[in-house]
Amino acid sequence: MASKTKRAPKAAATTAIKLPQVDVKTLGLIVDLADEVASAAEKRRDPHLEIPTRSLSNVRFNKSRKIIEMGGQTNRRQLFNLSQAKSYMQTLLVATGCKQLIEQQKTTSIRGLYYLLKHTIEGTREETFATQEECDPIIEDLEVTLESLREELHVYASNRGGMVGPITLIDSGDEIDCSRMGSGGYSIPSIVEADIVKFKSCDAKFILHVEKDTVWRRFNEDKFWRKHNCLQTHGGGQPPRGVRRMLYRLHNELKLPVYCLLDNDPWGYYIYSVLKQGSINLAYESKRMAIPEAKFLGIRSRDYDRCKLSQSVQITLNDTDIKRAKQIAAYPWFAEKKGWQKEIETMLKNGFKLEVESLISKDISYVTDVYTPERLEERDWLD
Amino acid sequence: MASKTKRAPKAAATTAIKLPQVDVKTLGLIVDLADEVASAAEKRRDPHLEIPTRSLSNVRFNKSRKIIEMGGQTNRRQLFNLSQAKSYMQTLLVATGCKQLIEQQKTTSIRGLYYLLKHTIEGTREETFATQEECDPIIEDLEVTLESLREELHVYASNRGGMVGPITLIDSGDEIDCSRMGSGGYSIPSIVEADIVKFKSCDAKFILHVEKDTVWRRFNEDKFWRKHNCLQTHGGGQPPRGVRRMLYRLHNELKLPVYCLLDNDPWGYYIYSVLKQGSINLAYESKRMAIPEAKFLGIRSRDYDRCKLSQSVQITLNDTDIKRAKQIAAYPWFAEKKGWQKEIETMLKNGFKLEVESLISKDISYVTDVYTPERLEERDWLD
Repeated sequence: MASKTKRAPKAAATTAIKLPQVDVKTLGLIVDLADEVASAAEKRRDPHLEIPTRSLSNVRFNKSRKIIEMGGQTNRRQLFNLSQAKSYMQTLLVATGCKQLIEQQKTTSIRGLYYLLKHTIEGTREETFATQEECDPIIEDLEVTLESLREELHVYASNRGGMVGPITLIDSGDEIDCSRMGSGGYSIPSIVEADIVKFKSCDAKFILHVEKDTVWRRFNEDKFWRKHNCLQTHGGGQPPRGVRRMLYRLHNELKLPVYCLLDNDPWGYYIYSVLKQGSINLAYESKRMAIPEAKFLGIRSRDYDRCKLSQSVQITLNDTDIKRAKQIAAYPWFAEKKGWQKEIETMLKNGFKLEVESLISKDISYVTDVYTPERLEERDWLD
Repeated sequence: MASKTKRAPKAAATTAIKLPQVDVKTLGLIVDLADEVASAAEKRRDPHLEIPTRSLSNVRFNKSRKIIEMGGQTNRRQLFNLSQAKSYMQTLLVATGCKQLIEQQKTTSIRGLYYLLKHTIEGTREETFATQEECDPIIEDLEVTLESLREELHVYASNRGGMVGPITLIDSGDEIDCSRMGSGGYSIPSIVEADIVKFKSCDAKFILHVEKDTVWRRFNEDKFWRKHNCLQTHGGGQPPRGVRRMLYRLHNELKLPVYCLLDNDPWGYYIYSVLKQGSINLAYESKRMAIPEAKFLGIRSRDYDRCKLSQSVQITLNDTDIKRAKQIAAYPWFAEKKGWQKEIETMLKNGFKLEVESLISKDISYVTDVYTPERLEERDWLD
């Protein structure tokens, strides 16, 4: 059995490695967490953790900062409480695993962390975790408790998303010229903190972020970024944290405006909403990921008429679409914006949604030759 | 409405571009197809197409070449046949779309091609394609009819898979040093034909292909490729055509042996089977994608005992797993191999499957420090 005692000496032996600043800080937070437990035990008090509540009721839209933030609600998780003891111990176990990863200067996936920590508790038949689904929310609990991004805990989400354009960066010591990365572009890693990815030089004037790699590829093939001197990014659908964090850093450190080209459907609206204001589930990360100044270029509901699109490209809205559209229209950050209310109303009135790819029906390069340049030229976007 | 007549002049105007050799050939095949139709019409015969049958009944295992091949069965698709007229015209429409793409020197996704060709037929309410599901099999029909890869028709599948290691290649004119691509590695494009991707120099001695990006990342972080002088690739699960074709080219042009590290489950076995012998559905592509010399490093059913893995990493086989395992054991290319019969029997006897990540329970770098080097050293693999 892979017991913790077997791994402990290895972890200890590697602490001699000089840790990056960000890791020293995270490690400190984990140690503080453990100290609280120890000190409670010494004082003969019930050890407990205060876990910030991750639910809609504990999320609010900060109107001045224009991002979604977490409120102050917490749930107490106690060791000496039959219904909480297991999750209490799981939380400390996940913290131990992350500590080990940081000390060893290694990273792993959420799947990897699950395997790292899964074992039968000695002398029992009890598993630390029955399934990965039991482990994942505990990782999120630890993130909010320590106010540390998952990536800072050395656990990464999936590696999706690409970038091309006139920027040179240093990724893990390698110098990467994103204008010379071939047809696939630079694959945006899931951890893009400044310790790992450094910006060396950049000539781009803005970022064009598109939803899908297939659309991104059209732009790349047509060398849009060269003609318009921009960075082109995609997130493979809803962008993973690495992509969001990369956009945030590019926007804030290099002062690049972000324009989004997404589908004309509730899912496209939602992607924009998350990029701009943050997501409800990951509200604690908004302040390091949300880009309130991001603009929505399209495609817009009125583009069907304006671009004289063929009837064949319509995709009829289903009940879920209609429900989601109404929910999104009611989001506090959209509710007061006339432009957005009109946009969503028009889609509902149209009765259909449109994918960015539908512009291909005009011409294969209509989106790069006509649509996007016109919108940018006329500063025609939603905020 | 985006009618074909509107687009035709554009396509014609761009034929002045000098086309790469591969495109000249594919274009010739499409024109031949059209000529047959025209000549049938002139001779007042029923125009028809002979489409090779894409089904298990028309697939056979070539024992000497050790790949899956298509047989000679074809289905006749006629214009003057009520049940075939639509698919006949759709086939010619897809051919027209691919011709246009090649002439314009552009590529698109299957979704893009669908939008490019979808329109309401003039004077009717009939759509050329109701959904993409109607278009996709027609693309495959055209591929087998012309014996051209989808990529040669300028239509690409998804862009998954990555590579890192001591190789320098030219991708679309950019020189790419795959040993200096940062933490994400080189993103393998979906089209890797010699016109687009050229190998410049390579110091690697072999290829280690792993199933998942998360495992690949462990190897990259531990710089396995540097210690063992190899290329590391992954296919994000079942590798897409671009990755298979890249492995094929690396194997055949640079003479690099391919070792696969996949999950110990029917899905892992199947990935290996496809890499090695080709797939039933894409049998016509085997001769340009299958690598009969590829080896299966693991993980093996006997590794549970051999590596002294903890009971917690077992994942119980379900009914589908058991059924699939038996099917795979009966594949002609596995049926006569004692090693494979034993491998699959042991898994069934174990009653559980194992993911590569389960090795993390030993130590986070057990797979890179111990498992893989030992197997390679001892030449301990399945063929």
